[in-house]
Amino acid sequence: MTEPDTGNDGRLPHTDRIPYGGDYNPEQWPQAVWDEDHRLFTQAGVDTLTVGVFIWSLTQPDESVYDFTILDGILDRAAAEGRQVCLATGTAALPPWLAKKYPEVNRTDFEGRRHRYGQRHNFCPSSPEYRRLATALAGRLAERYAEHPALLAWHINNEYGGACYCDLCADAFRGWLHERHGTLDALNDAWWTTFWSHRYTDWDQIEPPSALTEHWRGPDHTAFQGITLDYQRFMTEALLGCFTGEKEAIRAHDPDTPVTTNLMGTYRPLDYHRWAPHLDFASWDNYPPLDAPPTRPALAHDLMRGLKDGAPFWLMEQTPSTTACRDVNPLRRPGELRLATWQAIAHGADAALYFQMRASRGACEKYHGAVIGHAGRDDTRVFREVAALGRELGELGGSTLGARTPARTALLFDWDSWWALEISDGPSRLVRYPDVVHAYYRAAREAGADVDVVAVTADLTPYDVVLAPALHLVKGDLAKRLEAVARRGGTVLATFLTARSDEHDRAFLADVPGPLAPLMGIRVDEWDAKPGDVEQPVQVGDLATRARLVFEIVQLRGAEPVATYGADFYAGTPAVTRNHFGAGQAWYVATALDQPGVDHVVRQVLARHDLVGPYADHHTVETATRVTPDGTRLLFLLNHASEHARLPAHTAATDLLTGKRFDQGEVLALDPLGVAVLRLQ
Amino acid sequence: MTEPDTGNDGRLPHTDRIPYGGDYNPEQWPQAVWDEDHRLFTQAGVDTLTVGVFIWSLTQPDESVYDFTILDGILDRAAAEGRQVCLATGTAALPPWLAKKYPEVNRTDFEGRRHRYGQRHNFCPSSPEYRRLATALAGRLAERYAEHPALLAWHINNEYGGACYCDLCADAFRGWLHERHGTLDALNDAWWTTFWSHRYTDWDQIEPPSALTEHWRGPDHTAFQGITLDYQRFMTEALLGCFTGEKEAIRAHDPDTPVTTNLMGTYRPLDYHRWAPHLDFASWDNYPPLDAPPTRPALAHDLMRGLKDGAPFWLMEQTPSTTACRDVNPLRRPGELRLATWQAIAHGADAALYFQMRASRGACEKYHGAVIGHAGRDDTRVFREVAALGRELGELGGSTLGARTPARTALLFDWDSWWALEISDGPSRLVRYPDVVHAYYRAAREAGADVDVVAVTADLTPYDVVLAPALHLVKGDLAKRLEAVARRGGTVLATFLTARSDEHDRAFLADVPGPLAPLMGIRVDEWDAKPGDVEQPVQVGDLATRARLVFEIVQLRGAEPVATYGADFYAGTPAVTRNHFGAGQAWYVATALDQPGVDHVVRQVLARHDLVGPYADHHTVETATRVTPDGTRLLFLLNHASEHARLPAHTAATDLLTGKRFDQGEVLALDPLGVAVLRLQ
Amino acid sequence: MTEPDTGNDGRLPHTDRIPYGGDYNPEQWPQAVWDEDHRLFTQAGVDTLTVGVFIWSLTQPDESVYDFTILDGILDRAAAEGRQVCLATGTAALPPWLAKKYPEVNRTDFEGRRHRYGQRHNFCPSSPEYRRLATALAGRLAERYAEHPALLAWHINNEYGGACYCDLCADAFRGWLHERHGTLDALNDAWWTTFWSHRYTDWDQIEPPSALTEHWRGPDHTAFQGITLDYQRFMTEALLGCFTGEKEAIRAHDPDTPVTTNLMGTYRPLDYHRWAPHLDFASWDNYPPLDAPPTRPALAHDLMRGLKDGAPFWLMEQTPSTTACRDVNPLRRPGELRLATWQAIAHGADAALYFQMRASRGACEKYHGAVIGHAGRDDTRVFREVAALGRELGELGGSTLGARTPARTALLFDWDSWWALEISDGPSRLVRYPDVVHAYYRAAREAGADVDVVAVTADLTPYDVVLAPALHLVKGDLAKRLEAVARRGGTVLATFLTARSDEHDRAFLADVPGPLAPLMGIRVDEWDAKPGDVEQPVQVGDLATRARLVFEIVQLRGAEPVATYGADFYAGTPAVTRNHFGAGQAWYVATALDQPGVDHVVRQVLARHDLVGPYADHHTVETATRVTPDGTRLLFLLNHASEHARLPAHTAATDLLTGKRFDQGEVLALDPLGVAVLRLQ
Repeated sequence: MTEPDTGNDGRLPHTDRIPYGGDYNPEQWPQAVWDEDHRLFTQAGVDTLTVGVFIWSLTQPDESVYDFTILDGILDRAAAEGRQVCLATGTAALPPWLAKKYPEVNRTDFEGRRHRYGQRHNFCPSSPEYRRLATALAGRLAERYAEHPALLAWHINNEYGGACYCDLCADAFRGWLHERHGTLDALNDAWWTTFWSHRYTDWDQIEPPSALTEHWRGPDHTAFQGITLDYQRFMTEALLGCFTGEKEAIRAHDPDTPVTTNLMGTYRPLDYHRWAPHLDFASWDNYPPLDAPPTRPALAHDLMRGLKDGAPFWLMEQTPSTTACRDVNPLRRPGELRLATWQAIAHGADAALYFQMRASRGACEKYHGAVIGHAGRDDTRVFREVAALGRELGELGGSTLGARTPARTALLFDWDSWWALEISDGPSRLVRYPDVVHAYYRAAREAGADVDVVAVTADLTPYDVVLAPALHLVKGDLAKRLEAVARRGGTVLATFLTARSDEHDRAFLADVPGPLAPLMGIRVDEWDAKPGDVEQPVQVGDLATRARLVFEIVQLRGAEPVATYGADFYAGTPAVTRNHFGAGQAWYVATALDQPGVDHVVRQVLARHDLVGPYADHHTVETATRVTPDGTRLLFLLNHASEHARLPAHTAATDLLTGKRFDQGEVLALDPLGVAVLRLQ
Repeated sequence: MTEPDTGNDGRLPHTDRIPYGGDYNPEQWPQAVWDEDHRLFTQAGVDTLTVGVFIWSLTQPDESVYDFTILDGILDRAAAEGRQVCLATGTAALPPWLAKKYPEVNRTDFEGRRHRYGQRHNFCPSSPEYRRLATALAGRLAERYAEHPALLAWHINNEYGGACYCDLCADAFRGWLHERHGTLDALNDAWWTTFWSHRYTDWDQIEPPSALTEHWRGPDHTAFQGITLDYQRFMTEALLGCFTGEKEAIRAHDPDTPVTTNLMGTYRPLDYHRWAPHLDFASWDNYPPLDAPPTRPALAHDLMRGLKDGAPFWLMEQTPSTTACRDVNPLRRPGELRLATWQAIAHGADAALYFQMRASRGACEKYHGAVIGHAGRDDTRVFREVAALGRELGELGGSTLGARTPARTALLFDWDSWWALEISDGPSRLVRYPDVVHAYYRAAREAGADVDVVAVTADLTPYDVVLAPALHLVKGDLAKRLEAVARRGGTVLATFLTARSDEHDRAFLADVPGPLAPLMGIRVDEWDAKPGDVEQPVQVGDLATRARLVFEIVQLRGAEPVATYGADFYAGTPAVTRNHFGAGQAWYVATALDQPGVDHVVRQVLARHDLVGPYADHHTVETATRVTPDGTRLLFLLNHASEHARLPAHTAATDLLTGKRFDQGEVLALDPLGVAVLRLQ
Repeated sequence: MTEPDTGNDGRLPHTDRIPYGGDYNPEQWPQAVWDEDHRLFTQAGVDTLTVGVFIWSLTQPDESVYDFTILDGILDRAAAEGRQVCLATGTAALPPWLAKKYPEVNRTDFEGRRHRYGQRHNFCPSSPEYRRLATALAGRLAERYAEHPALLAWHINNEYGGACYCDLCADAFRGWLHERHGTLDALNDAWWTTFWSHRYTDWDQIEPPSALTEHWRGPDHTAFQGITLDYQRFMTEALLGCFTGEKEAIRAHDPDTPVTTNLMGTYRPLDYHRWAPHLDFASWDNYPPLDAPPTRPALAHDLMRGLKDGAPFWLMEQTPSTTACRDVNPLRRPGELRLATWQAIAHGADAALYFQMRASRGACEKYHGAVIGHAGRDDTRVFREVAALGRELGELGGSTLGARTPARTALLFDWDSWWALEISDGPSRLVRYPDVVHAYYRAAREAGADVDVVAVTADLTPYDVVLAPALHLVKGDLAKRLEAVARRGGTVLATFLTARSDEHDRAFLADVPGPLAPLMGIRVDEWDAKPGDVEQPVQVGDLATRARLVFEIVQLRGAEPVATYGADFYAGTPAVTRNHFGAGQAWYVATALDQPGVDHVVRQVLARHDLVGPYADHHTVETATRVTPDGTRLLFLLNHASEHARLPAHTAATDLLTGKRFDQGEVLALDPLGVAVLRLQ
């Protein structure tokens, strides 16, 4: 893999307003529909179209034939209409001839089954034939369209993901391991292979960890965490290699146009932090379960923003109305689409795009929501909401572009910890990494703090508060850097199952929590676990809360108790502790507190740094701050309730959406699901 | 496939009473048991034996050897005892030598695994070797037994079903597609392959849709509905080809004896409407879950009767006591077997047969109920009930034979709609076609209406009311024919998720409900879905009902509201509508109403045509009418309650079972689980 | 397989106290850790180490190289420290080179998938290469260590289990069948193959019963019970053949040291009764779900003790704190480890060993409990409890060694019945053999009776009471021997689903319960089944109990009713019966009574023989008796409650743990989770 060619703070496509539009597949339709589409796009304020995502079977109908007739038409028409395109390379779905001609390009699944042609996202990332043909196609496209007036950005492939377990991947994995571990002795030590007689004496003895080798009961149960962890890392890089291969091919013809691929937020299979340096800008597809609390998509937005060191990202996809792929697909109610879009912008989105502009006539997404439905109408509720939002964004213009979030709270998000926690036996399979992370993120956000969700390698010096929930793996110099945060006066918070193992998921040969024990001032020898329906009382100051799942038994080694267990033989022992360390503090939460418990703890932490927001008691009102390149401070207010909210302006401000000016203390009324974007004075 | 050789109204075996008996496997037993069997058969009034169903390994112990010794003995003995046989060709379970010699005959499953020898119903329908050998066997049997005095009917194979995904099937599928679609362009258009880059350029690129190609999470999740739908159709015809192959072989030697195969009612994998023309008469195996409401088996009876245009069918199997294959196998309580048998007759059965006459000593059905148990007794409760029923049917004689149901209500049942609905993503995987169909069927039946359950191609002119619940696909001229029903004064009822897509499951490019929109006088732009445990209030006139799963938002375009939603942002909008169309009406039910709601709607519809029965308020009493060839009108009264029922005779009548005569208004008392068969004056 | 070389009452390693220690893997660690380990072992009273369990990849790093350097060091160090070793052959986990070099050694699973290298317990038991190499290794070890001063016992392989379905196994199965059945006619008759046309004409036609052949919905659903039953038996013997092969190789060099392998209690896949004669002594790994009632592990202890005709066994593994492999892994609370260890001793354990001495640094058991944790501390709660128990056992010395249980109650435990019951269709899949067995075992144990859990072939003459719950298969002369028990005055108890089928799982051609019908004095023609959440009232004398799952309808043929059904059409008919037979009684329980119902019935049975214990009303206090070789009678009292228990001594006694003497009637106080070991006067 070549070196990343952009700094980590990225490079966004240049626009003078928030690009608005989305995935568009005119290749499925006759020209009369194209005419109608563009009429409706204009009506809806749509200026940006993502095209070519699944067009490979048309652009290359046979290995020896490239045919860009349709794509020429699509781009030329867009340009003629004054619209810009995000041009996909289209390599995410194989054309049938390719799968037939080179069966190696079809994936072998976790069960060891070589697939045959079907679906999408179906290519083996290690296949030389796939890489050769995908890269060639990307190069051809760049050669042809680099100078096209409609071209705004490159969109490589689509929603990279999944995994392959074929022999090509096995070979590539062995090579990757050789490079990573150097010697078999080092690998044997890293994976602790002497356990269960696995000491490898030849690289060829290593098999991809699958249902036919190290796994049982699915991908979460493995005999050796080390091999499974390494396979996740390898697969992350194998898919990334596909991306960088295409990107290089584009760069050979187009040195400037920004390149991205659409990510998927908190997506377990791929460590996006390893991808981040290779993206010119981040973009992602936001499909939260529609009954999720608003902090779920917010967490994903902040994680995506964190990829490029806080630079804005693109919201590459969202549904204007419903999904189709779920068992139950509820409708976005009136106003919900607008609110979700403004939430994305509040968290750093500099584009707002839909999947999809026109509903497919056939296949599995035909009932997925679309701006334009099967009847082609402009008088549906959905179209009207989309068009109104288009007008609103048009009126806003470029006021938010390039703005950054001035967070003083960091939350560490770590794919290695996610993987290690969820592929390990004991103490409880019921602990899910995103749930623990979300509980702490939610507490901080609902307290009004802006939060950067960052990698464990991120620079922590800008932050007053660093949250490290369920950070199972602690690698490199992280423990030292966390100590530095506390030493200079900051606060570090860790939880149960934090700092248990090293980068190979080998347990630290030390008291729990391993390298964080000195910082936390505690020692943990044992931990209990209980079924999911069992709740234990925990007293946090005056607050009676409940805890579940895992109960670590904490011995104080300098720390003081903040909360205590109320039941079982460890009743009266600490459930939450605080340690004074340098000028700062280190908190440890030894059990899965309920949300009120987490809220209580996190607010104490934030309060120490004056980071509780002015509207922290308005539970349904989300706030988010962005600072524009010229230093303007924007405060987004998002009312997630179906009731009005009335807030006193905490400083003089002007609402960019209405132009209305508020003096400090003046009451600001938010409609149900209402939004304000305050430019603060 | 050759042309069907009988008209659609079929040809039944000639008998002068209801054939009574069932599956009989004397090949498993020594001669002493045969003697005992026939003694008990006589005692139980058994005159008909289904033989040879799983006898292939005996009749052809090797490819080069046919041996009919045992079968000769079975038929000769039956003839000697004055019993008739339904003779099976026995091709549903392969003999071991065949599976070993020709591995191609073993199926390849949905997961892509070639099976080896085991179980039954285990043959690849596309295998030339299987077809050659099965057909040859059928021919040999016909040659030998065409003139046998015991022969009453032919029973080809057994419970055809399942599917195969092997290379032979793949090739056959490609040929079938070529014939059906003509060109790849047509196929690409039908399946909408441009979506996800699936444009095929060679027939060989097409793979059977399976877990290794287009499917994920099992057979219901497919990337392309078109290919999956076509595979269901192909597999229906592939298995049908096995049937017609055997039938032709029989016909070469036996031009007259009626031929059938035992179907399975509402069985999703096979479109029985495609089979119907090829059957001389319909027959089926009735194994309802024993806690199902009586309308569940009734629906299946009426569906089976509909196969041959209302001609009587055979009840080929039912258990005299318990099943064995379920997780929990309750016992038929005293009287339940008799009631179920009379229900079958009331719905058109002209035979009443059991699986099985004598319990198997070994293997997986050894605990399945049987007329004769392991102890061989004639003093068990089950034997006594069977014998009593045998006597009762004997006394009845031929009074019901050939009778037909004079229904004025039709319910459209459509396998294409079933498949399309359940293999589509969105809006809700919780909607199951048979549940929706059953709710409307039940409402009509409990209101006292006789119902013909018919294919969408059926002649609709005889009907006043046509119910089209969840008719997802609308094909051919159906919309016009439904309009004609209403135009001439009839009533058509459709529901949510009706008329969404065309024969290839491509969405109609029009307002929902597509070609039925003019008839229904409505327009639907959007639809909500909610989890299965969420109920929404819907007000239907005075009745407060609940609705679940899917909530279409209806705009009136001529129709009037009949019921309205009571919650969510669409509160107050129509949940049920009625449109005046010509001299008739069209009703649309936009959500999954609870049963009282469906009942209320359907009774209004039926009442308009005076189709609510005289005992509609006796909730547990089922009524059914049959008209014999000589015009006699029979009214079956079936009391499904464990309490007595007392009904005033609505007209003068004689109970065929007791000989008792009732004047109009006289009270007719039904025992718990009691039955009356009234000959109306 | 060679003849077993020891009598069934076994031969235990000679020790003068209860061996204490457990699994130890110093090969994973540097020498400095070894030093620390032995220091801690001494501190904890550990004298016995199980070593070499997963060391193959070190002892034989290549086919041509044996290297015993590490093992020499381990044993020499143990000897130097005065500790003894239980030496494993280490053949349970393949080294990578072996799996790569001979792919045949990797198992083919139930789904037909050949595995590749991974996990442990991963060898094909029929593989000649595996057998050759495993046996050679065992021989080499015996040659080297037979005379080693530390050697106490041989531990072959580890937790034998699982199954393989490869072609080698298929061939071996055919050979096994040939030997067992003699002719194909006999096999066809045994499996009742005429059902479903399975009549085999060549041995090669027989395939292992798997998901690709006779099974569907997993291992419990088979078309032919006969083949599946035989495959379980075959696989039991195939794995046993691996064991005996290694044992013979050891015996060639070491004629005396006792040999065992660690079994797994109530483990379905292997019929341990077929293994028992080949073990010098029984040993097993006790990992009860930590919320199981104490009678669950007790049942397993008694089953293991029964393997060698009542001789003591070894507790080879238990966790000192938590498991890791479960979804939720609770902690053993203070005192629970000690109580569980004394429970094992009370039931016949002559050793108390842990898995594991030191926690693994990596791989899937790194969070499994260990005597020494990752921090290597001696001041953890777990280490302190282990050390205290070590002291207590050291003080006890040899007082319990060789003691036997003087039970007068036998419970028949039969793997054939377990398999047959759970692989049969009908009447209810919800009946699980161990649940039914446990209910009766629990009732007897909580009534204070010592229970021998024995094979159906065991000598029944020592027993007053024989319990035969859910004994589905009745083989050989068992019925006669049960009649003899009753005839001489004893009591036999059978239940629903007892005595339904013969050794091939063919139904008896007789009234239910087949050969036990004369003894029971009843006849059963039919049986009902209900869903798991349905309870039916059953009146047992004055006690109102509930019954579930299966309801057999009993006709009295000499027996008298003891309890009656209270609902459904069989209300008033017998649910429990008692028959006078000779001088004794035979009880039949026709339904799955709740535990109070079972308790009530069993106490009546025990009371007849004066077998209800003195503390039967102290529900939480378990009692168990052992008689030492010199005739001393020991009464173990185990308080499973977290409250104190106060019991009057029923005879004069001395507590071996405290030295305190009690007169008859004096109150004996047990702490919460407390234990007393009374030497009775």
